[in-house]
Amino acid sequence: MAEAVSKEPNIVSEAGVKQLLGRDQKGHVLATCRNPDQSTGLQDLKNQYSDRLKLLKVDVTDEDTIEAAATSVSETYGYLNLLLNTSGILSIPNLLQPETTLTKVQKHALLLAYEVNAVGPLLMMKHMWPLLKSGGKIGTTRDAAVVANLSARVGSIGDNNLGGWHSYRASKTALNQLTKTASVEFARKKDPIICLLLHPGTVDTDLSQPFQRNVPKDKQFTKEFSVNKLLSIIDGAKIHDNGKFFAWDGQEIPW
Amino acid sequence: MAEAVSKEPNIVSEAGVKQLLGRDQKGHVLATCRNPDQSTGLQDLKNQYSDRLKLLKVDVTDEDTIEAAATSVSETYGYLNLLLNTSGILSIPNLLQPETTLTKVQKHALLLAYEVNAVGPLLMMKHMWPLLKSGGKIGTTRDAAVVANLSARVGSIGDNNLGGWHSYRASKTALNQLTKTASVEFARKKDPIICLLLHPGTVDTDLSQPFQRNVPKDKQFTKEFSVNKLLSIIDGAKIHDNGKFFAWDGQEIPW
Repeated sequence: MAEAVSKEPNIVSEAGVKQLLGRDQKGHVLATCRNPDQSTGLQDLKNQYSDRLKLLKVDVTDEDTIEAAATSVSETYGYLNLLLNTSGILSIPNLLQPETTLTKVQKHALLLAYEVNAVGPLLMMKHMWPLLKSGGKIGTTRDAAVVANLSARVGSIGDNNLGGWHSYRASKTALNQLTKTASVEFARKKDPIICLLLHPGTVDTDLSQPFQRNVPKDKQFTKEFSVNKLLSIIDGAKIHDNGKFFAWDGQEIPW
Repeated sequence: MAEAVSKEPNIVSEAGVKQLLGRDQKGHVLATCRNPDQSTGLQDLKNQYSDRLKLLKVDVTDEDTIEAAATSVSETYGYLNLLLNTSGILSIPNLLQPETTLTKVQKHALLLAYEVNAVGPLLMMKHMWPLLKSGGKIGTTRDAAVVANLSARVGSIGDNNLGGWHSYRASKTALNQLTKTASVEFARKKDPIICLLLHPGTVDTDLSQPFQRNVPKDKQFTKEFSVNKLLSIIDGAKIHDNGKFFAWDGQEIPW
């Protein structure tokens, strides 16, 4: 089994890599991030699982690095059973801040969030597609290979009762549409690939840290809890789930 | 009454300007496009309605021009009753082409479609907001001022059974979310503004021309028919329609 986690070195993704490695004794995991050398969490895991973890340098805003990663996976394994896209940005000091009002919307922030949160995962899917197609037929106990894109409930239009967070919301909504669009093509071509959109809940990570005060304690998850729930959904995914949007508890979220 | 149509000089928009000018004897219309001097359609209308039509140079990808337009409207009228955002791109030779498969997806095309189709209308809303707030209280027989953003049925995620057209689809889906997000804030602040997302049907324009062969003849509208239908929806809009997505026939479209 070969599984790829496209990520920034944030804690959710590391927890994902750790759980994927820990739950069986033979699966191979590829973790991608912008600077693997500087991610102490991934380096620690690499020391522990040197034969089963491969670190690849990928910046989802640089398509050449995605293409190079796909080539590397192709040469090493020839297939991929799972692509877990967890890269995403919500706030970056002086560059991107969740907008509290329309007057604070900035063009560069809208474009940056779109590039990282929507375009990045789609380009990963574009280049990993042939590997997933192969991976849906071998090395997995699932119905098919899985693409799991980390979305967010705030990307739901139907569920948007609060407003705000324009850049982040729109980027996740677009990711939902792009993932759905790819899922339709995979289904039409009868490729053994299931595309999922997943809402992890509000998890205690760097990304959510500045916003946690608005979230009730019982709705704030540890990274291990959330990753465990998401992997359960991935493991149980069936062909008829292709193109759907699920919360951590398995409930479908309206578009 | 002061009404602004943000547009490229395509035929739907010109038909909109013409109908807005033709249906009463006193309403003022502002038409914006990148090169008003080169739009013979708008120049002809300007000659016919010199006292009621104002042409403004706006490129929705250049926020400075939007801000300048808002200042101009503010100085001339002080308010706006209707903002009709019809600017949009679907295909541009050698730059943007509706994608028939994931393998043809290009990052620059995704970003360009997003910038013009989603970010552009939102920046128009950002800068016209104070004018619309004033315009919801004066000079209109409607419940409120209206922002009508031209969306498209292919922007619906729930209705996406065909796939393809990744860049265009995602940009319109994002426009839906951005418009909904603004509508929530307007409602919370009790601003007299109704935001609508409108699907015009497949209209015989430059934008749809290359794709018309796939559309049954009875589902291909003249520009006058479509504009007339959309203006009916706008004229009949009520506060409870704020943030909704309607087709030309008044039917609500799922997100």
